[in-house]
Amino acid sequence: MPSFVASDERVWREAEKLAAAHGGPRGVQKAVEKDASLLKVLALPEEAERIDLNALKNEVDIVIPTIRDCDFLEQWRPFFGQCHLIIIKDGDPDKPIRVPEGYSYELYTRRDIERILGEKAKCISFKSAACRCFGFLVSKKKYIYTIDDDCFVCKDPSGKEVDALQGHLFNLVTPATPYYFNTMYDPWEDDADFVACYPFTMRRGVPTAMSHGMWLNVPDYDGPTQLAIDNSRKPAQNSYRYVDATLTIPKGSLFSCCGMNLAFNRELVGPSMYFGLMGQGTPWGRYEDMWAGWSTKAICDHLGLGVKTGKPYIWHSKASNPYANWDVEVNGFHWQEVIVPFFQNMKFSSKATTVLDCYREAAEKVKTELVALDPYFSQLGAMMEVWLDAWEELNPGMKGFEAPKSANSA
Amino acid sequence: MPSFVASDERVWREAEKLAAAHGGPRGVQKAVEKDASLLKVLALPEEAERIDLNALKNEVDIVIPTIRDCDFLEQWRPFFGQCHLIIIKDGDPDKPIRVPEGYSYELYTRRDIERILGEKAKCISFKSAACRCFGFLVSKKKYIYTIDDDCFVCKDPSGKEVDALQGHLFNLVTPATPYYFNTMYDPWEDDADFVACYPFTMRRGVPTAMSHGMWLNVPDYDGPTQLAIDNSRKPAQNSYRYVDATLTIPKGSLFSCCGMNLAFNRELVGPSMYFGLMGQGTPWGRYEDMWAGWSTKAICDHLGLGVKTGKPYIWHSKASNPYANWDVEVNGFHWQEVIVPFFQNMKFSSKATTVLDCYREAAEKVKTELVALDPYFSQLGAMMEVWLDAWEELNPGMKGFEAPKSANSA
Repeated sequence: MPSFVASDERVWREAEKLAAAHGGPRGVQKAVEKDASLLKVLALPEEAERIDLNALKNEVDIVIPTIRDCDFLEQWRPFFGQCHLIIIKDGDPDKPIRVPEGYSYELYTRRDIERILGEKAKCISFKSAACRCFGFLVSKKKYIYTIDDDCFVCKDPSGKEVDALQGHLFNLVTPATPYYFNTMYDPWEDDADFVACYPFTMRRGVPTAMSHGMWLNVPDYDGPTQLAIDNSRKPAQNSYRYVDATLTIPKGSLFSCCGMNLAFNRELVGPSMYFGLMGQGTPWGRYEDMWAGWSTKAICDHLGLGVKTGKPYIWHSKASNPYANWDVEVNGFHWQEVIVPFFQNMKFSSKATTVLDCYREAAEKVKTELVALDPYFSQLGAMMEVWLDAWEELNPGMKGFEAPKSANSA
Repeated sequence: MPSFVASDERVWREAEKLAAAHGGPRGVQKAVEKDASLLKVLALPEEAERIDLNALKNEVDIVIPTIRDCDFLEQWRPFFGQCHLIIIKDGDPDKPIRVPEGYSYELYTRRDIERILGEKAKCISFKSAACRCFGFLVSKKKYIYTIDDDCFVCKDPSGKEVDALQGHLFNLVTPATPYYFNTMYDPWEDDADFVACYPFTMRRGVPTAMSHGMWLNVPDYDGPTQLAIDNSRKPAQNSYRYVDATLTIPKGSLFSCCGMNLAFNRELVGPSMYFGLMGQGTPWGRYEDMWAGWSTKAICDHLGLGVKTGKPYIWHSKASNPYANWDVEVNGFHWQEVIVPFFQNMKFSSKATTVLDCYREAAEKVKTELVALDPYFSQLGAMMEVWLDAWEELNPGMKGFEAPKSANSA
């Protein structure tokens, strides 16, 4: 596993002290020629290296929405074996599903959701992978990793199997750097650091709230895009390119969040990881992860949290039917032209100092501003509020990240 | 060479038309089952593929600042052989330097710079790689590629030698997407496209002004960072990680621009690619490329242009002395904490519709606002104006990119 250090502000403070004591850098050079140990003060702190990512897996719940037997977990056993699973069964409550032996898990059907949430169960989507967010509600762990049942272990270019969960934990326990772009990507990786003239005070970074992992084989395309690619000479229907990098998505920039291979720090952003009301009885589908991503990224930008994307990869096995996708996505293609700028320009009040506060304000704005797109957004905003009520009931006092009083991000 | 197509807004317009004619996506599916050719209207446009990047090399000047014989060009001959070189000799004007036979080149010494620019030669740095921007002034080509004399051809993971110039041209002739982050990185690459729910109207992108290429072997670190890494257990002194991606640096995000392996569209941003007054007689050095990058990125964000970073890689052969670097960088470490937010928050007037207009406003702001850091910035701002005067004299009427009247970026 990589070491977790990167040159930080301390490096520059120590360098300044050294220089002051020896008449500038050239003086330091002369002094070091006599006593090399002088430079030890500049050495990167190594404490963080001691974080045991494998031990940290005990602080993770793996959330899986499914309508099938969970045989895909057999392959993940070396990496998920010690973790607890929360399975949300999104179909006939009476049809049994198989979970490979030896896994610790709890399984919820629609009946369980209704039993536990009562009237508030209406905020959890039915017949949509959006139901996975129920697992975020009932978890008591610090981290959530959510993965789809058609996602398998992939190999890195050296042929080594990728422990996706460990990769996400690495992303989550190391800071994010949303205020200035590091051309070497995540500076906490082994073979990278902060490039020249990266402002030292920005090197501390901010807490990482979300780690968005990518996919080999079948990419996440929308229906029309998939059809266009299939009918072109472009060989992008399947992508086997392993991009060996993770990076922070800069402040102010939104992205398409995919729920297939996604981890987050529940203590930081649990209250905003609502996957919306999608699927049966609603005018769109396949936007549940987008919704969680857009709203959570807007809140992260406001409060000073970071979102990373890139590694770890998983192997996504099957493309869905592009016509079926297009069918449920179609309203979204029109709406996203408004929703993306809506979240990009969202201003929260100065009273919104926690993720929970921010999400309540976002719900209100969805009801009053997005309703111009379609009456459905009045319902969606209301369900965001129901979700928050359910969150507070099941997670009393847990308001998510609270911005420090003096927070004044760049 | 990759195909140059990516799903664009047209894809969605055509999909809408198809659906309207066949009763929605499911109707299209049924119709296509009878006549697959129906989908041809969705196929990605292939025209762009016909751009011949090799032919485009005739529209490039390669600018090289050096004090040495240019033997490194031998290795580049298969890729640069057809290009014209502009060599800026930054040392003793009377010491001859060797350029490999067969290259077409022009060579300028300090004496030439003074002869050509007269009084205005004072804006060109002396004894600093910043002198390279004189080459941008005298070029008559559309594209500039500038490379250092310790940079060599590297290999991609498949073992193929990387044609860095072709990679840069690919980046520059394909659009950039600064308004929304594409998790698959540059969608114009062969094995990528726009991910699901990337807003269709943003897929057209904006013209790419700059292509910032990365380095294998010796990364671009500042002095204290290099010393800290050298004294840690982190193996990042040298980086052999080939990150197989290019991406647009989002709007609002600044980066550390490195001049070692950098290409740009001179017609779009020539007037702002001034490398500042650095080196001999000034209070800092090694910030010339940072300066060009920060100011040009701020202007690109204002006018609606894009900057890409990532591929192509070159092999950077030697690390410089970290004490010598720290020595000349030291003021920059303090100043960059102010300069970065200064450029990040720079507001241009509504009259600033061209790159040249914007750069004149930036010069004025440097003189009046950054002067609080050090009297030197009054001089630097004045030299930015001298540079612009020299630019207008040598490139009459060439004001760089002009924002469309209705420009209203996200």
